[in-house]
Amino acid sequence: MGVSGSGKTTVGKLLSEQTGIPFFDADDFHSTANIEKMKAGIPLTDEDRVAWLQSLNQLAKENETRGAVIACSALKETYRQQLADGLHHIQWVYLKGSYQLIHERMLQRPHHYFSAAMLQSQFDILEEPSNAWVFDVQEEPNRITESILKYLIMLSDFGIIGLGVMGKSLALNIAGKGVRLSLYNRYVKGQEEKVAEQFITHNPILKETKAFEDLPAFVQSLAMPRKILLMVNAGAAVDAVIEELKPLLSKNDIIIDGGNSFYKDTERRIQELNQYDIHFIGAGISGGEEGALKGPSIMPGGDAISYEQVQFILESIAAKDKNGKPCCGYISNGSSGHFVKMVHNAIEYAEMQLLSEVYDVMRNELQMSTDAIATVFKQWNQTELNSYLLEITIDILQTKENNESLLDKILDVGSSKGTGSWSVAAAAELGVPAGMMTSALYARYLSAQKQTRVKAAAVLGTSQSSVSISTEQLQQAYALARIINHAQGFELIKTAALTYQWSINYSELARIWTNGCIIRSTLMEQMAAIVAADELLLHPLIITSIQQQLDSLTQTVTASLQSGIAVPALYEALNYIHAMSTEQSAMNLIQAQRDYFGAHTYQRIDDASGKAYHTKWKKAP
Amino acid sequence: MGVSGSGKTTVGKLLSEQTGIPFFDADDFHSTANIEKMKAGIPLTDEDRVAWLQSLNQLAKENETRGAVIACSALKETYRQQLADGLHHIQWVYLKGSYQLIHERMLQRPHHYFSAAMLQSQFDILEEPSNAWVFDVQEEPNRITESILKYLIMLSDFGIIGLGVMGKSLALNIAGKGVRLSLYNRYVKGQEEKVAEQFITHNPILKETKAFEDLPAFVQSLAMPRKILLMVNAGAAVDAVIEELKPLLSKNDIIIDGGNSFYKDTERRIQELNQYDIHFIGAGISGGEEGALKGPSIMPGGDAISYEQVQFILESIAAKDKNGKPCCGYISNGSSGHFVKMVHNAIEYAEMQLLSEVYDVMRNELQMSTDAIATVFKQWNQTELNSYLLEITIDILQTKENNESLLDKILDVGSSKGTGSWSVAAAAELGVPAGMMTSALYARYLSAQKQTRVKAAAVLGTSQSSVSISTEQLQQAYALARIINHAQGFELIKTAALTYQWSINYSELARIWTNGCIIRSTLMEQMAAIVAADELLLHPLIITSIQQQLDSLTQTVTASLQSGIAVPALYEALNYIHAMSTEQSAMNLIQAQRDYFGAHTYQRIDDASGKAYHTKWKKAP
Repeated sequence: MGVSGSGKTTVGKLLSEQTGIPFFDADDFHSTANIEKMKAGIPLTDEDRVAWLQSLNQLAKENETRGAVIACSALKETYRQQLADGLHHIQWVYLKGSYQLIHERMLQRPHHYFSAAMLQSQFDILEEPSNAWVFDVQEEPNRITESILKYLIMLSDFGIIGLGVMGKSLALNIAGKGVRLSLYNRYVKGQEEKVAEQFITHNPILKETKAFEDLPAFVQSLAMPRKILLMVNAGAAVDAVIEELKPLLSKNDIIIDGGNSFYKDTERRIQELNQYDIHFIGAGISGGEEGALKGPSIMPGGDAISYEQVQFILESIAAKDKNGKPCCGYISNGSSGHFVKMVHNAIEYAEMQLLSEVYDVMRNELQMSTDAIATVFKQWNQTELNSYLLEITIDILQTKENNESLLDKILDVGSSKGTGSWSVAAAAELGVPAGMMTSALYARYLSAQKQTRVKAAAVLGTSQSSVSISTEQLQQAYALARIINHAQGFELIKTAALTYQWSINYSELARIWTNGCIIRSTLMEQMAAIVAADELLLHPLIITSIQQQLDSLTQTVTASLQSGIAVPALYEALNYIHAMSTEQSAMNLIQAQRDYFGAHTYQRIDDASGKAYHTKWKKAP
Repeated sequence: MGVSGSGKTTVGKLLSEQTGIPFFDADDFHSTANIEKMKAGIPLTDEDRVAWLQSLNQLAKENETRGAVIACSALKETYRQQLADGLHHIQWVYLKGSYQLIHERMLQRPHHYFSAAMLQSQFDILEEPSNAWVFDVQEEPNRITESILKYLIMLSDFGIIGLGVMGKSLALNIAGKGVRLSLYNRYVKGQEEKVAEQFITHNPILKETKAFEDLPAFVQSLAMPRKILLMVNAGAAVDAVIEELKPLLSKNDIIIDGGNSFYKDTERRIQELNQYDIHFIGAGISGGEEGALKGPSIMPGGDAISYEQVQFILESIAAKDKNGKPCCGYISNGSSGHFVKMVHNAIEYAEMQLLSEVYDVMRNELQMSTDAIATVFKQWNQTELNSYLLEITIDILQTKENNESLLDKILDVGSSKGTGSWSVAAAAELGVPAGMMTSALYARYLSAQKQTRVKAAAVLGTSQSSVSISTEQLQQAYALARIINHAQGFELIKTAALTYQWSINYSELARIWTNGCIIRSTLMEQMAAIVAADELLLHPLIITSIQQQLDSLTQTVTASLQSGIAVPALYEALNYIHAMSTEQSAMNLIQAQRDYFGAHTYQRIDDASGKAYHTKWKKAP
């Protein structure tokens, strides 16, 4: 870009010759009317330029894959916006010179239809770009071309900060799609040294990838608008990196936080970066190390326009669903991406808890061996109960160490990170009775008190069960509890969407979760249909499941309680069904109590107006 | 106070004559050595003054109840701090005059042992007070005395902002203890007009109380350091009032927030006001309208020194325990007061839920009438199950409307405010498996979905129970569940204290809860002994209770599950006992799953070092 006579065509053609990328001169795309006007020395109006800019934008889009060199004056920011509209990669090169200098050059080009007299009008409207490479028109065109080539070769399309397990796997995945990458890992003497460099050395697929330990150099290595994926620990580390990045970034650059960040932090970061016109996408990424490498499930939320800029890369690395569609899709504005990822993990907590309960019942109540349990789980996995978590559980049950079950050697103290706890706090705050994920979280907390457990077991002994159950009943109980778990998870997301004004396509979200992520399963395929319903519990598929499997669930829970086996997640499924199908609950007593001691008032069943009643309950002594 | 010759003794004696409050001249408390020094014209050093100031402070303390007028030069701020140390009420009066004027007056007092030559040394060290009433020494002593009297009569000892139900009841309670009160309620045209004024008019006990709608005037009406109790809605309203108060207050003034504020907000407010040397006490107050009026349970947390300044008033209005001790006591620093009040409410949630479940089982499973249930509850209330909540439940069950049970007319949709939800979020954040309070909160949330419940009930119908239980079993189940509920509540407080570095006396906290508050009960008297234990569950009283009552609890829960009656809080008690007495839980499977998909590592039962192990679980395909 630049005014007429700045040398755009010369430099553009040289660039094309040396790269093999086709060259286009924007002047060739003017209408006859525009050309006549210019020949007559009449300056073009913005209106004259609309169709012209559109055709150039179309040209760029058509050539986006192989690339194109386009010489165009592009004098105003609005023209440049129209030219760049919808493009994923664009680099502006601005050839800059004074009026006097260009005017002299123009006088030496008599055959050009542009009248030198119009030059002043060009300088009048010229708005210099803030995001271009700038060259002095007095430099030799060959030297300018050489510099551009050097810059171009150096620039990466995408940057990743943080090379932990997930960061590394995603880097390999992205590089495998032909994306030019820059990788940055901080330098911590003696602990983290040359992490990016060594990672690249050990992975031939990364031979085009650049390694950095210096953040400004990393940022400068990225094409604008820059796209930077953060894969650092959620919490203070994310804020610290953002603070370091802020002075280095330009308007319209995009930061994607791919970690399990707390959604309220994401909301705050979006607001804060918005002041600098830097876009922030909170993207949940699920699939663990293997998923990140081979195709994760990705849940990006934030500014929809910015998402379009990274959509291509994110979708190309995501897992594919059964129809070949990527398991990645824009969730909604704000922190919606991180919120749904948090709930994904909470559903995962309860799915894992259910499996551990079923395993516990088989092991302790049915006295089954680890191998026998694996055999039953394999049968289940052939049915609609198929899931990734069931698959890996079978692998685990079959893993031996010196011919003994490795599982039996593992300490029964559960760990947890942020997402489970945050989900429960969100459920409490938003008014959602998410009993199953809560019971799964609390089960981990209870397990942590191992010493007290051992002492209490010694004092209290073990109960003896008089009731028994079959593996078929257990299978039905498990199937029903899983459906309730998924319903509760989606209820939490639906309530959050209402509260925070997100517009989420729930069926699409379920589809995104059908592959790549930890909770992928045959049930999730079915959920895509169910979750669109207003009242999930009343969906025919759920009602049928309850009608067919409730007795087995009841039997499983009561038998376990009588045997002293804690099955809190199975119980919570049962309690949810009971509570949600009780027409007249005992909450009238609690409302009366609240009115008694706190004058909180109550409503009456015989007054549908919602009027608040208060009673002086206390009898005179 | 003031330099020699300012007229302290004259004004002090006049004040004493007119009020009947004894007068003391500080000069009379000097040691012989000091007097000799002064006669010799040698200025006293700070060291000379230490014993003297101590004896004056002692004098003031001894006379605090009836009051004392003390004339003392008190020239430096440090002297005044020593004089005021540990006093609850003090008012400085500063008689101010120029060196020239005082010097002239000194020359007219030949018999005074003070040499006029020393006057300059006094002016040299004089630091004028910022918190005194100031009078010009040129005014007539009689006029000065008159003004002081007028000021004294006008000043209140204690201020209350916000005259809702709780604010009004506390005002009546405090005024009844002879405390001079100022009351402020905001002016909202057409909604809140002359609230304080009308309240005082209608309550003769408040005839000495002052009413305000103007905040600066309210603040000026209070003796310093000012003590202001906020009784406004938790949340933004508290922040708004603090913002308005900040410019009006002086160093060392004390704000007490008596509402149910979120503890993290209290922590923030303490930090913020600390910058202005304004002290903030977060005080939980429980007892509802009646408790506030007749004696609530009060849980103040914050700066211990500031608490001493309001201790007298708070303890005088609190309920008394069985030994006559006030149910009010300093909890610990920071937001500890509001935290324990939050947990108090969460225990209350679960206590209410338990009663509603027992009522539900009697009503639906045992087909008992409201009157029959009341009769059983009255029997229970004669036993160790006695509690305030059980008492009011009996009143509620007996309340009739046109000879029909009023309870049956109440809509079964439970409401909730902040504390229940915050407690669950805190439990999730702090790693405490507080299942019972959580189930109580979720039961209210579940009840809110009345429409879905009615529809689901119509589709799914009602289960028929084949098992039945006796009211004696129910009584045992209820008793055991209550103990577990209290244990869980105290566990949450203990974990918070560890996390936030609070030093809380748990037995004292239980004692504070034995009267005045909503969860007062015979069990709470017993808890005072139990909660001191490190592992609550292993306390002999709890172990015995489990051994004797676990079968009844199991029977109650399983029978209810088979009848389709939701008894989530009873269940959570049972689950807690099961989980906490399971030596080998199924958490080993979850640890294996986490290691499988996320490389989160696990520990082994045969390696006590806590070493982290990782396994490549996946079999080659």
